[in-house]
Amino acid sequence: MNKGILYVVSAPSGCGKGTILETVLKNNSNIFYSVSATTRLPREGEIDRVNYFFYSQKEFQKLIDEDGMLEYAFFCDNYYGTPKKQVEEKLAQGFDVILEIETNGALQIKKNFPDAILIFILPPSISELRRRLNKRRTETQEVIEKRLSEAKTEIMRAENYDYIMMNEELEKAIVDFEAIIASTKLLRNNNLNKIEEVLNNA
Amino acid sequence: MNKGILYVVSAPSGCGKGTILETVLKNNSNIFYSVSATTRLPREGEIDRVNYFFYSQKEFQKLIDEDGMLEYAFFCDNYYGTPKKQVEEKLAQGFDVILEIETNGALQIKKNFPDAILIFILPPSISELRRRLNKRRTETQEVIEKRLSEAKTEIMRAENYDYIMMNEELEKAIVDFEAIIASTKLLRNNNLNKIEEVLNNA
Repeated sequence: MNKGILYVVSAPSGCGKGTILETVLKNNSNIFYSVSATTRLPREGEIDRVNYFFYSQKEFQKLIDEDGMLEYAFFCDNYYGTPKKQVEEKLAQGFDVILEIETNGALQIKKNFPDAILIFILPPSISELRRRLNKRRTETQEVIEKRLSEAKTEIMRAENYDYIMMNEELEKAIVDFEAIIASTKLLRNNNLNKIEEVLNNA
Repeated sequence: MNKGILYVVSAPSGCGKGTILETVLKNNSNIFYSVSATTRLPREGEIDRVNYFFYSQKEFQKLIDEDGMLEYAFFCDNYYGTPKKQVEEKLAQGFDVILEIETNGALQIKKNFPDAILIFILPPSISELRRRLNKRRTETQEVIEKRLSEAKTEIMRAENYDYIMMNEELEKAIVDFEAIIASTKLLRNNNLNKIEEVLNNA
């Protein structure tokens, strides 16, 4: 059996990453979504182990010390990271795994897992991203400008990703994402065993 | 404008490569099929410039001498090759190009065009390939065994290709091929300009 494939997805806030992943996961039952860990407190409606693994500072630090994190970052007074165990277990079992993380973490992962497939989702433009964030009406203008500034920093790192796709139209973005998944399964390294199988079945 | 993408497709005789490519070309109007050149005589029904560019030994040799061939091989007393001019022109115009060639030529191309996407189409098994070749009833048993032996040599080189797909079921094989095309358009190197466009449209 082949090991599973690790996909790492990044996109600025407002790029529709959540909606795309929700559909992709619904359509691909053998892909496992890896839940991140954080030391921040749950927001209203957030559920432990579904939205995040909510850890205490001490628990998180322990995982770091034990080399139990694939990547982690300290951000707005809190730790965020990807526990190594669940990802490695699923991959070893032959499941594909999707991580949804910011660009620094994604590039850390690529160093440790060169076969990981990094996918960046672009907004059509910064002005369209501003329009989408304004439409939510959940954040102050100051917060929106901060998100846009973060978005620009993230977008500049897209050049280090394997794939760069744009969410201009949701249906098309889902088709694109699934084409990446389908073609990754056809990559040489995931099919070397097939060559032998074909030759042996003579 | 981005340069077009060069796809190189190889498959042993009997793998359904022709049928797959026919459908893919019908569905993707911006992909140009590059016709090969040969010094062998046209078979019944073959049309110059459609099936092959039929060249004299002298014309072919002239193109080789002028560095006008992307790749060529001498095979069963005849030359076969890919004229450089048409391929480079189409790529420069932004068209994608598909070459359908055997494995030696394909690996020559990859050396000169590292960005070329090499796709190998496997049969489900050697025994299934034998069954398909027998079903045609156009070749003697001796020729069929020779083709199977060539097929094995070709298949062993599949490990040097970017993608390895199997034509077990035609519909699925076409979907796979088109997923490779769709995802290739999303590769980092084909989208670096988009990063700048998104950032500039603020």
